[in-house]
Amino acid sequence: MDKAEILKSIESLSKINTDTMVLNDFLLTWDKSEDEIAATLQTAEILRALRQNNISSRVFETGLAISIFRDQSTRTRFSFAGACNLLGLAIQELDEEKSQIAHGETVRETANMISFLAEVIGIRDDIYLGEGHTYIKEVARAVNQGHQEGVLPQRPTLVNLQCDIDHPTQTMSDALHIIHYFGGVENLKGKKIAMSWAYSPSYGKPLSVPQGIIGLMTRFGMDVVLAHPEGYTLMPEVVAIAQTNSAKFGGSFCQEMHMEDAFKDADIVYPKSWAPYNVMEERTRLLQDGDRQALQALEKRCLEINKKYINWQCTEKLMQITRQGRALYMHCLPADISGVSCESGEVEASVFERYRVPQYVQAGYKPYIIAAMIFLSKFKDPTEKLSQLVNQARPRVY
Amino acid sequence: MDKAEILKSIESLSKINTDTMVLNDFLLTWDKSEDEIAATLQTAEILRALRQNNISSRVFETGLAISIFRDQSTRTRFSFAGACNLLGLAIQELDEEKSQIAHGETVRETANMISFLAEVIGIRDDIYLGEGHTYIKEVARAVNQGHQEGVLPQRPTLVNLQCDIDHPTQTMSDALHIIHYFGGVENLKGKKIAMSWAYSPSYGKPLSVPQGIIGLMTRFGMDVVLAHPEGYTLMPEVVAIAQTNSAKFGGSFCQEMHMEDAFKDADIVYPKSWAPYNVMEERTRLLQDGDRQALQALEKRCLEINKKYINWQCTEKLMQITRQGRALYMHCLPADISGVSCESGEVEASVFERYRVPQYVQAGYKPYIIAAMIFLSKFKDPTEKLSQLVNQARPRVY
Amino acid sequence: MDKAEILKSIESLSKINTDTMVLNDFLLTWDKSEDEIAATLQTAEILRALRQNNISSRVFETGLAISIFRDQSTRTRFSFAGACNLLGLAIQELDEEKSQIAHGETVRETANMISFLAEVIGIRDDIYLGEGHTYIKEVARAVNQGHQEGVLPQRPTLVNLQCDIDHPTQTMSDALHIIHYFGGVENLKGKKIAMSWAYSPSYGKPLSVPQGIIGLMTRFGMDVVLAHPEGYTLMPEVVAIAQTNSAKFGGSFCQEMHMEDAFKDADIVYPKSWAPYNVMEERTRLLQDGDRQALQALEKRCLEINKKYINWQCTEKLMQITRQGRALYMHCLPADISGVSCESGEVEASVFERYRVPQYVQAGYKPYIIAAMIFLSKFKDPTEKLSQLVNQARPRVY
Repeated sequence: MDKAEILKSIESLSKINTDTMVLNDFLLTWDKSEDEIAATLQTAEILRALRQNNISSRVFETGLAISIFRDQSTRTRFSFAGACNLLGLAIQELDEEKSQIAHGETVRETANMISFLAEVIGIRDDIYLGEGHTYIKEVARAVNQGHQEGVLPQRPTLVNLQCDIDHPTQTMSDALHIIHYFGGVENLKGKKIAMSWAYSPSYGKPLSVPQGIIGLMTRFGMDVVLAHPEGYTLMPEVVAIAQTNSAKFGGSFCQEMHMEDAFKDADIVYPKSWAPYNVMEERTRLLQDGDRQALQALEKRCLEINKKYINWQCTEKLMQITRQGRALYMHCLPADISGVSCESGEVEASVFERYRVPQYVQAGYKPYIIAAMIFLSKFKDPTEKLSQLVNQARPRVY
Repeated sequence: MDKAEILKSIESLSKINTDTMVLNDFLLTWDKSEDEIAATLQTAEILRALRQNNISSRVFETGLAISIFRDQSTRTRFSFAGACNLLGLAIQELDEEKSQIAHGETVRETANMISFLAEVIGIRDDIYLGEGHTYIKEVARAVNQGHQEGVLPQRPTLVNLQCDIDHPTQTMSDALHIIHYFGGVENLKGKKIAMSWAYSPSYGKPLSVPQGIIGLMTRFGMDVVLAHPEGYTLMPEVVAIAQTNSAKFGGSFCQEMHMEDAFKDADIVYPKSWAPYNVMEERTRLLQDGDRQALQALEKRCLEINKKYINWQCTEKLMQITRQGRALYMHCLPADISGVSCESGEVEASVFERYRVPQYVQAGYKPYIIAAMIFLSKFKDPTEKLSQLVNQARPRVY
Repeated sequence: MDKAEILKSIESLSKINTDTMVLNDFLLTWDKSEDEIAATLQTAEILRALRQNNISSRVFETGLAISIFRDQSTRTRFSFAGACNLLGLAIQELDEEKSQIAHGETVRETANMISFLAEVIGIRDDIYLGEGHTYIKEVARAVNQGHQEGVLPQRPTLVNLQCDIDHPTQTMSDALHIIHYFGGVENLKGKKIAMSWAYSPSYGKPLSVPQGIIGLMTRFGMDVVLAHPEGYTLMPEVVAIAQTNSAKFGGSFCQEMHMEDAFKDADIVYPKSWAPYNVMEERTRLLQDGDRQALQALEKRCLEINKKYINWQCTEKLMQITRQGRALYMHCLPADISGVSCESGEVEASVFERYRVPQYVQAGYKPYIIAAMIFLSKFKDPTEKLSQLVNQARPRVY
């Protein structure tokens, strides 16, 4: 996009209602209206284009962005850092090992204590089923209350950097990727996407990506197929959302028991490992009890079950049965690549390598998606603010 | 404060002598003159008002702020980060585990090596009696010497983020809080503040807060009462300072052996746990010797002694005997709240909850107190610099 | 330098060809042309002078600088942080413990994933012979490929913050130091520098500093003498480079078996400990095999061998035989100082203390050297960019 195109894109953004996003959090895509989803995708595009044109999108002279990572992260950590920096915010990470964070009363207190000068709080909490989203909501409630009580001069807004339920910064980046790939959101209608479980020699991967994918992609009128072996079910409430969405938005949603059935004539395949729902539930309970022995037994048992489905792998052969043998392969990365990062994993090396560049390009949307989420939660009139940035055209690199 | 009021406040700041603060450290409040204390409080107010009016107080285009945390910290860490960011400095934390920091010669060397581009160094070192303040002074001497020798192009100034003796960023925030609460520093005269020990099921809390409180509040002409069980004495030199201050500034200072005597007719109560002085001394020695067995025995013994004073708790009943039953409850946070964060602790849950919002508001002053300390150590004419900020009125959020 | 002198220095920089530096990495000094070395030294001087004149050298409104430290670091960590901040970049450290970084395929992936908004990547990887430089090259290849494939909107450039082969940010700072000390690079011609092994009670220090010194200083027409006990050889390919350089640049290079022979009439002495090459090789192998027992045995054996050379110490007596007894003592710091940081070490306390201030001054060049490396890799016309900075003269501290 050149400057004229950016201004045109901003003009079209002005037709989308973003009022509801101001001072609001981005936690689950299905809590967001069509307008909110559309505005986020479009603002991400605009911010990306600004940077490509060496126009600064710095809107904060000073201000903190807090990150809380309760699980390892590279991609999302750097995307969040990049997004915040792009807007002018400085990252301050809450390292819970260097702090004294307890539960109950003190979540409210800690949330306020770290937020006096904070514009945004990004949280990853994806390990325990039933906990991550709850924790993020608790922090959101705390800062909301703090703002209302006059404790916080501004309401820091929250961005879900992956919880137990959804991974919106990932799936929104995925959405932007396929919008680009198929030449417009209107072209997603009727496209078949296969969200399929795939074998991995590891254990306990979160459910948030497959849940997020079926929850979001059903909104674009796509034909969404979820496939997994018996027992590897997702949270029933999210499956219900996918079903409701598909009815509402004119696509379809169905479940299959075989990878082949999902891949058949698919336009997009998203083969990815996750842990069985009931294993995750049991694991959460055991972790809370601190029962190490039972945890090891569970892990061993789970890996045994996993092995039964070692043939759930995205092979060249399987890719042949997709639409014209040319479905777009997707993954949230890092993938378990057979013969590369493990003996046998989610995807055959040649398939991954063929789609490596698009995959990497896809990951590159994430900083802009996060920046858009923050931007739209901060400005009542994003159109005016973005126009101002274009017109001032302060260079990002002098 | 609106813009006109801010300018008026800056005008009145111009009557305070701040020359002595330039390139000077903020380590102990009692080393500071009345003017220095007054200027810090007022500059903090002005910086806070600037932010409330969306006026940027960024005075550094680039520059580093170094933090050294030799103990866990959430509140102060984020306050320091926010303060430095507010002025335009980027935080670089010295993580001693990732470095090779020894004692003796190398404190001087390390202090210089990290300071080539540093404007400020914030240090928390509060665990060992007789060590923290000594360490901070050693760093201060090192960078001073480095500056004089031409090694450092600027003299980074130090901010004590809590040592074994004082916790000035906390107590100055506390002071700003009660100045607001009682409607002006002149109204503090004759107000009774009870700095009382309180029971906690934990062990080894620093003495710096109670010491800092009696050392600072006696300067405002307040009636300061220190109460603690036998053996929980503070450093005698700080108690002596409180006595001297009370004589000099027309208030009073006395010590009580019962919480009730301190709370009687108090306008402010500050019930907080700390470790007995001699236990802290013994602990420091044992830690230096690395005698784990003796340390565990000491902890056990100390907790046993603690339990004898389990009734030293800020209860609703006790609050009744304060001035009109309505004393302001204060704590540096986090408090040990009975039935919330522990079974039995420093304060009853209903008392804490009633004063929770003022407490949180109080904590919100800390970033501005720290920013003021840095600001006044950097600019010879803070009045001119602040006026310039108001007149330019660059927005903090564009 | 005042403003006029800065402009003159910029003018003379315009005569040096820096085209080859754009989007290029700074990994080994001997891969750099004379012009590239000269331009880096001079740009460092100019950036230093800008700061001394309170002129901002911020050239990035936003942008990330990634650091990867695979070994402990204080000096270089803070130098890199200061350099990046000086140019306007925000540091984001890749903490490999908080990420999931594996080898092979994923170096390419991780390198891309962290680089979407990155302008520069600084890497320290100095522990394993044959690995550090290889790793840095792998990252460089990955981001280069990523940029060419359209994954990365910009090519982040790499700065070697010490690898197994060279330590260019150190040796270039060392060069700037002696250029200042002897009053110009032209005065280095014919000066004798003794790069000598020295005794240390520790084990396994990298070879990169002595290698970097002989590889760089032979380019200034200096008489470079390398001295070490039998077995403490350096990488033969670097020794060969020193030999080639000395022939090409009209100086000399020779090796001695006694510290005295190296110190005789030396203008500069650089006594520093390092591990024997074959020990480092064996250690790398054992570390890769995870053979703890053999590693301990190796360490014990190595320290025993070390002790045989305990008299390799930079004493006052030894300093007497240098040129007029007044050679400049240098060290990359921290030094093992006899009676200070160890019982018996690399240097006598009085020698170190006498040269302490010059040493510290020397270390202060490093942030500017790093900033110059980044600057020259980013701007096609550094002369124009620097002139612009001087002419705009935005203050660094407002």
